Amino acid sequence: MEPLKLMDTRITQLFGIRHPIIQGGMVWCAGWQLASAVSEAGGLGVIGAGSLRPDLLREHIRNARRATTRPFGVNIPLLYKYASESVAVCLDERVGIVITSAGSPKKYTGDLKAGGAVVAHVAPNVALACKCETAGVDAVVAEGFEAGGHNGVDELTTLVLVPQVVDAVRVPVIAAGGIGDGRAMAAALALGADGVQVGTRFVASLESSAHPAFKAAVVGAADTDTVLTLKRVTPVRLLKNAFARTAQAREAAGAGRDELATLLGTGRARQGMAEGDLEEGELEIGQVAGLVREILPAGEIVRRFLAEYEAACGRLPAVAG
Amino acid sequence: MEPLKLMDTRITQLFGIRHPIIQGGMVWCAGWQLASAVSEAGGLGVIGAGSLRPDLLREHIRNARRATTRPFGVNIPLLYKYASESVAVCLDERVGIVITSAGSPKKYTGDLKAGGAVVAHVAPNVALACKCETAGVDAVVAEGFEAGGHNGVDELTTLVLVPQVVDAVRVPVIAAGGIGDGRAMAAALALGADGVQVGTRFVASLESSAHPAFKAAVVGAADTDTVLTLKRVTPVRLLKNAFARTAQAREAAGAGRDELATLLGTGRARQGMAEGDLEEGELEIGQVAGLVREILPAGEIVRRFLAEYEAACGRLPAVAG
Repeated sequence: MEPLKLMDTRITQLFGIRHPIIQGGMVWCAGWQLASAVSEAGGLGVIGAGSLRPDLLREHIRNARRATTRPFGVNIPLLYKYASESVAVCLDERVGIVITSAGSPKKYTGDLKAGGAVVAHVAPNVALACKCETAGVDAVVAEGFEAGGHNGVDELTTLVLVPQVVDAVRVPVIAAGGIGDGRAMAAALALGADGVQVGTRFVASLESSAHPAFKAAVVGAADTDTVLTLKRVTPVRLLKNAFARTAQAREAAGAGRDELATLLGTGRARQGMAEGDLEEGELEIGQVAGLVREILPAGEIVRRFLAEYEAACGRLPAVAG
Repeated sequence: MEPLKLMDTRITQLFGIRHPIIQGGMVWCAGWQLASAVSEAGGLGVIGAGSLRPDLLREHIRNARRATTRPFGVNIPLLYKYASESVAVCLDERVGIVITSAGSPKKYTGDLKAGGAVVAHVAPNVALACKCETAGVDAVVAEGFEAGGHNGVDELTTLVLVPQVVDAVRVPVIAAGGIGDGRAMAAALALGADGVQVGTRFVASLESSAHPAFKAAVVGAADTDTVLTLKRVTPVRLLKNAFARTAQAREAAGAGRDELATLLGTGRARQGMAEGDLEEGELEIGQVAGLVREILPAGEIVRRFLAEYEAACGRLPAVAG
């Protein structure tokens, strides 16, 4: 193996990584296999705690540590019923980097930092980004409307959100949502981000634990094949299928929170992403699925991001005169 | 005046302009005053035909020609009741550049090109971008969900849409939606676009014919102050006000197309943007309004875009090793 290339940003410095590519900690897709592969390639691999019971999370952390000596992280969605136990496991296992989302940054940032972790929190608007900074986070993930899975209610896109967050906070900003290749990484860094978080592209990787049928569906998706739905429960971006269409139709007919929560039920995310039920399962994925054309090893995805990034920067026209 | 700087892209070549900055032809905001100011500064000024009766459009074209010898264009939304007459006026006046939107690119592209015009059409998804190319357009405007005013139904964001359109067509691509400063221009060009279309930023310009109260509201807007609504009539992005909130509430309660069309009525865009009724008028504006902090001369906006673009490109970290 040739030695890893290096990009120097505040995020590579903060996390101690080679490239400012953070793999999203997607439920049902991001176990230790994916996280360690991304970290080995010089990015930041992230284990998604949101679909792992605490004992299983501990196992994934230990396996990741066996598979790589490089830094990796854990993502904890705070709406997850085992969020508090997941935080305890991360502290107990001395996980170096924790990304929290879908809840208040005040809740665990202090404890995690006291335990020695570097902490980032996901923000869908400027006000929450400022709250993150006040809560003491080391970085903010500015995540746009195009992102897969759970989403904010403000519908701010990555292109619009990132520069406003960059202007509002002093800590480094990681752009998330719609980052499918190195061109988008160049775009995000041009907006002032110090790194990117990439979810959808890594769902369709060799090491992702997504069901093969779900990976194939991501590869086959066209540009218009996702929808943000269940806005009155928790907005979530899904690949369009029978379930998503039903949810959308009920929502359009004026269904309230209770009806939609009942329709959603429990276990649909597992049914879709882990078990491969492409019609009745919940298939969380970003808009950028339309750009994904093949399943690749995670390390190869990282290497292509770098090459595409360099090519994109090289094509930018100069201002003459 | 110092001589204008130059950026060389397929769009500056196609339009014969100095910088790949196309001013959006916004209804009620983009008359000859704004268009000629942008063209004089080296971008492409565009007269918005969608709020001008044909005889008034002709007057604006003639006034623009008196005010600048540089190229300018006309934007014609094809859902406008005088669209066909507007096309006839452009042909008759030998307007060099016409941008059409909100309709089929097949309808007028042939006639306009036969009359000597360079033609671009607005596309919100990859399939329509391909149809534009087949129809013979010279460029495609790839416009994302964050854009102000009329919008597609697919909700694809600029960050996700632009690279997919760039991959799908051979003609040059102009990125639109969410381009509020030179950082976003650098982002769009990194994605592979050859130019950007800027609407919202120019609404809050000295030469914009928007009502002063509307300009002030744009300057005062926060990141979360716009909403895409009236999705069952024609989706439109508005500054949140009493009218937008009513429309949203009725939509959420399941109101159909007819009820929403009646609620909208006629003349609301004029009432809001031209007459300054900030509560009951329709205030078409992009998500990026949150980034706009002051009213500036259009030429100064163009110059700042260039400086911000250069700074953004200069900050992009290199890949070492």
